[in-house]
Amino acid sequence: MPETATSAEARVRILGIDPGSTVTGFGVLEHAGARVRHVAHGTVRPVRHASLAERLATLQAALVELIALHRPDVAVVERVFVAASPRAALVLGHARGVALAAVGAAGLPLHEYAPSQIKLAVTGSGAADKRQVQTMVQRLLVLASPPPFDAADALAAALYHGQVAPLAAVLARVVPRVPARGARRGPRFVVRRK
Amino acid sequence: MPETATSAEARVRILGIDPGSTVTGFGVLEHAGARVRHVAHGTVRPVRHASLAERLATLQAALVELIALHRPDVAVVERVFVAASPRAALVLGHARGVALAAVGAAGLPLHEYAPSQIKLAVTGSGAADKRQVQTMVQRLLVLASPPPFDAADALAAALYHGQVAPLAAVLARVVPRVPARGARRGPRFVVRRK
Repeated sequence: MPETATSAEARVRILGIDPGSTVTGFGVLEHAGARVRHVAHGTVRPVRHASLAERLATLQAALVELIALHRPDVAVVERVFVAASPRAALVLGHARGVALAAVGAAGLPLHEYAPSQIKLAVTGSGAADKRQVQTMVQRLLVLASPPPFDAADALAAALYHGQVAPLAAVLARVVPRVPARGARRGPRFVVRRK
Repeated sequence: MPETATSAEARVRILGIDPGSTVTGFGVLEHAGARVRHVAHGTVRPVRHASLAERLATLQAALVELIALHRPDVAVVERVFVAASPRAALVLGHARGVALAAVGAAGLPLHEYAPSQIKLAVTGSGAADKRQVQTMVQRLLVLASPPPFDAADALAAALYHGQVAPLAAVLARVVPRVPARGARRGPRFVVRRK
């Protein structure tokens, strides 16, 4: 059954995660070529009165459970550039570290994209606010109700990866990879899109 | 056997953790009253060429294993004040979040102390450098060789907690606790040390 094999190969299940100190959003999509299927989304909200260590342990356990349940092929998180302050960066880092550890423990490849890239692709503006992302994600995935902001961000990241990854796979065949180590002076080819 | 029961009660096993993006130090001590017994120390160094997610997963797995092996009663980490930059704070936060999640998952109470407090108690100077902490920790615990810097910091945190916790237990009986929520206007008694 070569057709079945081909379509199974092209089906990629993507877990988007939007880690946060109080709320972590997640979204699971299945991409098959140009088609996208919404699988699940939601938020993890550890109880507020628990200690930080307890809340991080809750997040860890929830992500391990989600990965076991939905069996994604890849995970996607937003790349973090500059946080408002060292304090804010430290707090975000705690949750992000736990999320990345869960992804790493499951052996999932992790992809990171700039928030502005994701917003631009999903809403048409790299500076879109949370509500615009929420509205567009709901529309693109034909959801009955708007997903919570954090889940919408996670779904947007998963959507973006689903759009970008097939293009990246094509480019990988055309553009020779720059060697990871050593001299970066080798020839670099650029594919221009008209 | 009331004596046995009492001495068992007073014995506290402390896990000190010094989380870092490339190296995480740990140290396990057993305090029984004024006596301290060195149990173990070491460092967790995930392979450098692995991805961040893989390295954090390695750290997570190592800490879960250490906790299962040494069965500590409490965990201690340094409190983080202001990191050099948001970028540095984010990177540290990743490792620290993973460490705290491991502590929380094991149900261990977590104690945090300022690095300057720990250094002051262990070396006599709140501004001691890594080498001074290393030397004093080796001397205090009568170790055959100097522990690695990160392990020395973890041992110092565990040592400090072992010295402070019994005093805190005495104070808890003397000083009424300020209620955690609501008005902080209730009477506060201060115990002055001559």
